[in-house]
Amino acid sequence: MHVVVNAAMSADGKLSTREREPIAISGGTDFDRVDGLRADSDAVMVGVGTVLADDPSLTVDDPDRIAARRGRGKSPQPARVVADSRARTPPDARVLDDEAETYLLVGERTASEKVERLDRAGATVIATGQARVDLPAGLDALESRGIDRLMVEGGGELIFSLFDAGLVDELSVFVGPMVIGGRDAPTLADGDGFLEEFPDLELIGVERMDGGVLLQWDVA
Amino acid sequence: MHVVVNAAMSADGKLSTREREPIAISGGTDFDRVDGLRADSDAVMVGVGTVLADDPSLTVDDPDRIAARRGRGKSPQPARVVADSRARTPPDARVLDDEAETYLLVGERTASEKVERLDRAGATVIATGQARVDLPAGLDALESRGIDRLMVEGGGELIFSLFDAGLVDELSVFVGPMVIGGRDAPTLADGDGFLEEFPDLELIGVERMDGGVLLQWDVA
Repeated sequence: MHVVVNAAMSADGKLSTREREPIAISGGTDFDRVDGLRADSDAVMVGVGTVLADDPSLTVDDPDRIAARRGRGKSPQPARVVADSRARTPPDARVLDDEAETYLLVGERTASEKVERLDRAGATVIATGQARVDLPAGLDALESRGIDRLMVEGGGELIFSLFDAGLVDELSVFVGPMVIGGRDAPTLADGDGFLEEFPDLELIGVERMDGGVLLQWDVA
Repeated sequence: MHVVVNAAMSADGKLSTREREPIAISGGTDFDRVDGLRADSDAVMVGVGTVLADDPSLTVDDPDRIAARRGRGKSPQPARVVADSRARTPPDARVLDDEAETYLLVGERTASEKVERLDRAGATVIATGQARVDLPAGLDALESRGIDRLMVEGGGELIFSLFDAGLVDELSVFVGPMVIGGRDAPTLADGDGFLEEFPDLELIGVERMDGGVLLQWDVA
């Protein structure tokens, strides 16, 4: 499986304010680029924190891209994946609407009534790991369902966990023309952080857009 | 006064690990650029957290740059400034060695014996603000002593406070090819963070170096 992390951060590395208010960090050019990345992916993944804070749909907007997917024999929309160890995704979340297939990766300790409720809401629930989702096993399970190209849109906890498990192949970061600040504001990679061995990146692209710059990194 | 903030951060916006271990984020090309920036400044400023964590000297290394400063009728080294509300700078800190003049900005509530001890250690202590340093007044006091061009090297608490007070003119950020991660790791701009009005930046330079990229922003 090929895993691409894509996110927009402020010039000081924040994804949003400390109150997790979503902020328009990038503009139309970057939104369109992200729409294209989604269309090129088999699935788009977020952490449950992003679902609870932003309630995103994670779908492709552009009708031409949707038609092109159909033309390639794909589903019109990429699948959606939520890393949700404790099954906190609300049954009325947008990621559970009828626009696309949705996988919820939950921990095996999740109460069965929660799983059943999300199953009734239309999700395909995959239980792996104990209290926390086992991400390598979860991604293997997705791959066995035909998901070869996975795009990850955040948040910082999921992105760190994926780097920590050595699962990230590419990192695309739009750096926007603003300062958000805040020692408690979410950053591109949160979690416990690395202390000694740091994932090495190779800069493969630098492109100005929307007043900021898109940095594309390969993970060594 | 013209205020330039310069820092190196990881691709995810961190200045160091959550344990504040200094990390070599940039390389020789960027170190040399920073040395040149110091030589072009009347003073180099850090927050006391940086003094306690890294014990930097903040001096210019290159003998040619030191000679060029003398040739311009300047002191061989730029002055050093520490924002240190509670006068926690250790008397044996490197910033208090004999290499350059050093100003400590402290709060007016600082005990006089602390001030006297730092004064004996060679610092020029400027008291302004109550429990916390009044940065606009402190920078005015520095300007009245001939400091027209101030370079700020961090950390994230000081950088946020300067943005919060509207005192930053330029921001230079080297973005390095690594992920540090950590919700508690220091970032480029910490503090309480902005919630509604965000300082707007204008991208004036993008340059690849040392495997990463130098982003130069003007503050609008």
